[in-house]
Amino acid sequence: MWKESGRWNEFGPELLRFQDRHERAFCLGPTHEEVITDIARRELSSYRQLPVNYYQIQTKFRDEIRPRFGVMRSREFIMKDAYSFHIDEASLDAGYQRMRDAYTRIFERMGLKFRIVLADSGAIGGSRSEEFHVLADSGEDAIAYNDADHYAANLEMVPTRPGRSAPATEAMTEVATPGVRTIQELADFLAVEPSRCLKTLLVAGSEQPAVALLLRGDHELNPIKAAAQSAVASPLRMLRGAEVEAASGVPPGCVGPVGLDIPIIADHAAASMADFVCGSNRLDSHLRGVNFERDLAIPPSADLRNATAGDPSPEGGGPLSIARGIEVGHIFQLGTKYSESMGATVLNDTGTEQTLAMGCYGIGITRVVAAAIEQNHDERGIIWPASLAPFDVVLIPIKLSKSPRVQTAVEDLHNALTQQGIAVLLDDRDQRPGAMFADADLLGIPHRVVISQRGLDAGTLEYKGRSESDNQNLSESALLALLTAG
Amino acid sequence: MWKESGRWNEFGPELLRFQDRHERAFCLGPTHEEVITDIARRELSSYRQLPVNYYQIQTKFRDEIRPRFGVMRSREFIMKDAYSFHIDEASLDAGYQRMRDAYTRIFERMGLKFRIVLADSGAIGGSRSEEFHVLADSGEDAIAYNDADHYAANLEMVPTRPGRSAPATEAMTEVATPGVRTIQELADFLAVEPSRCLKTLLVAGSEQPAVALLLRGDHELNPIKAAAQSAVASPLRMLRGAEVEAASGVPPGCVGPVGLDIPIIADHAAASMADFVCGSNRLDSHLRGVNFERDLAIPPSADLRNATAGDPSPEGGGPLSIARGIEVGHIFQLGTKYSESMGATVLNDTGTEQTLAMGCYGIGITRVVAAAIEQNHDERGIIWPASLAPFDVVLIPIKLSKSPRVQTAVEDLHNALTQQGIAVLLDDRDQRPGAMFADADLLGIPHRVVISQRGLDAGTLEYKGRSESDNQNLSESALLALLTAG
Repeated sequence: MWKESGRWNEFGPELLRFQDRHERAFCLGPTHEEVITDIARRELSSYRQLPVNYYQIQTKFRDEIRPRFGVMRSREFIMKDAYSFHIDEASLDAGYQRMRDAYTRIFERMGLKFRIVLADSGAIGGSRSEEFHVLADSGEDAIAYNDADHYAANLEMVPTRPGRSAPATEAMTEVATPGVRTIQELADFLAVEPSRCLKTLLVAGSEQPAVALLLRGDHELNPIKAAAQSAVASPLRMLRGAEVEAASGVPPGCVGPVGLDIPIIADHAAASMADFVCGSNRLDSHLRGVNFERDLAIPPSADLRNATAGDPSPEGGGPLSIARGIEVGHIFQLGTKYSESMGATVLNDTGTEQTLAMGCYGIGITRVVAAAIEQNHDERGIIWPASLAPFDVVLIPIKLSKSPRVQTAVEDLHNALTQQGIAVLLDDRDQRPGAMFADADLLGIPHRVVISQRGLDAGTLEYKGRSESDNQNLSESALLALLTAG
Repeated sequence: MWKESGRWNEFGPELLRFQDRHERAFCLGPTHEEVITDIARRELSSYRQLPVNYYQIQTKFRDEIRPRFGVMRSREFIMKDAYSFHIDEASLDAGYQRMRDAYTRIFERMGLKFRIVLADSGAIGGSRSEEFHVLADSGEDAIAYNDADHYAANLEMVPTRPGRSAPATEAMTEVATPGVRTIQELADFLAVEPSRCLKTLLVAGSEQPAVALLLRGDHELNPIKAAAQSAVASPLRMLRGAEVEAASGVPPGCVGPVGLDIPIIADHAAASMADFVCGSNRLDSHLRGVNFERDLAIPPSADLRNATAGDPSPEGGGPLSIARGIEVGHIFQLGTKYSESMGATVLNDTGTEQTLAMGCYGIGITRVVAAAIEQNHDERGIIWPASLAPFDVVLIPIKLSKSPRVQTAVEDLHNALTQQGIAVLLDDRDQRPGAMFADADLLGIPHRVVISQRGLDAGTLEYKGRSESDNQNLSESALLALLTAG
């Protein structure tokens, strides 16, 4: 099936492939479009069966190059994946919107702060996709947004525009820069801003061995945008040391656009620079006061870089802000990518065979747990949102083994709460109170109740919410009211 | 960890091995003793923490040579696996017994007919193990049991005993048997019972290239018992065509013990045969009327075969019966097999380091579902035991789209049942009643309720249990009473 869809060759090294004992080729599913499309083409024959949604909650595998941060990026993880099939794009659009609404409600109920952002479809494919990101400073992804015009996108997706050029004011001169290699070293050595320096990156071309890409020194190359240029090989491949010298005749680390005899594409922002600093194509020197048109031909310009904070929003033009996010959901309009290649069709209402339109929708369940913790914790441990907490309340009896009265009281309370449908964790380890309090905070159970001889004498239980700092002494009925209200 | 425990080399081709993108060796867990022992050695430091049980419900993988029967024998399946750690064998014994009791209650609550049988520890290892088998004619495993003495074991585990020899009455003669190859062909050709024929099987020896094993023609070699003989190579390997000729000088298919110049071991039952038929070591002929001592030396005898129905029970000596079973659970006393090799120890009450005793306990969740169906079905489909049914009741409205009254009634009933905690499947497909009844039977939902205009006129609902043949007309309150009682 993976060969039918074409992804056996397209997917790249993240697809975990192996051979069984009979030396037959297998892979471990990183996502299940093929399997589900195969079910759909066998089960669906008429437009009357549409629209339909198939889903599962199940283990997925990806051969991550660098698994890290516990379950945040692991090779084995649990995913909820759903796949919808439709008679046409209009129905797909409506189904996609319903799933988007359902996902929104799911993450709202989880009590998570999140954003829906435009995304690249990557190895899954299709025409439109959006990601759900839990906002957290430790997030691996950068999100660009503007609250005024409601624009939000994965940073790698944000288009940037041509700027306005300033006039030339300096003469071009060559300056000695012994040992200077990086943009930061160059900016420091010449006491100019990195934004006044121009980087020249050599990448493999689609027809020629090399293409030079020009970027402002403070900007970051976007590999997806660069690979989308017809002159550039896709996927993007940076040339390494010896390849740079072979293609340009220039030692690596010295390359600049003046007199360079290979095709050049400038990022829009680089194309509007004036009086800039760049490599001289000679070791240990750079050029400064360089200007397009006067010192070198104006190269074609394109959108090659990641947006930065302050770049104009593509929707309204106001300045973009950047936040960090953790991707916990991703929804796609796949269109006919899989149904076409795998022949998943139904008869429509005129009796004609029609290729199914398809959507797919995933929630990274394992990662939701990690993201909830990244967003909700303090120096003492986890602070679970109520809907995600493994237990609602932790009961901590003091001197359990020495007081039959405490023992009876805690058992009675455990039963009373359980009967109300409250999930109770009873810490019956009989350790020091401090150790039990610290563990309760670490685990992040929303409510903590301490049962002690002294409290029982006073007819009260000692209550504290996980994110509160003070205890309250409550009667059992007041405690029950508090727990069942929340 | 798999190298530490030794199983990386021991496990054989069922262990699914592969390399990741960095060419590091990995395997997919077929069972998780190593991972859990690693957790135990890091988490457990004192006898005070014992006994303790770790468990998970999770996907397992085995590179089955021949996956078959749907989820009954598949390469990917869901297992509940638990691992217990103990200070000594006495505590392990008690914990094993408690888990055995819990498993018994679990399978009883599932409403399954099952047997607990003695089992081989196989690739998991350890000193004692028992399997839980759901009884079903289609079961892959054979179980030997005697109800009078309560003996029950996986057939491969049942020991067989030496028999009594009969005196020789016939003279040894060579008879022409052109084209005869198998025991059945031989028995038919000479008009004797297969039990009067002797098979000679050549297997690889531990020190010599070949060992000949003698079995009665109607008996089956047990590879585990045979490989346990010191002269036989372990694991057992049958010699193939050319190897047979090289080792014995005899064409394959003709080998017999008379005049054979390689070590011979006879199964106890073969050793007590008299006047038997066997290979002549020449093509197209056999010997008949052969007797030990007179025609060939008495070979050493051993238990090499599977027991058969009628063999004496090892417990009481009464005749064994054979049933077919599907293994759904397996419990093991592992002792120190893993904790020793992986260094899992705690300090005991005298402050001395002590190696943990370990048990492990598995339920094949995916297979339980298949086994329940094998045991509970008829020609119309599944008959779910109530505790395993995905829904308690299926509601079938007649002419749903044409009758607003039926629509209201079925929705009210759905809500009323759901509020009682009853799991309801509502067939709102509005198909022909016959098609909906057939699907309800196929799915095996325990209770079926039909809602029709005519029934509503009479104030009744049409009820039928899945394994009943007649309908009953019930009031809604009578229906509720029936469903909540069961």
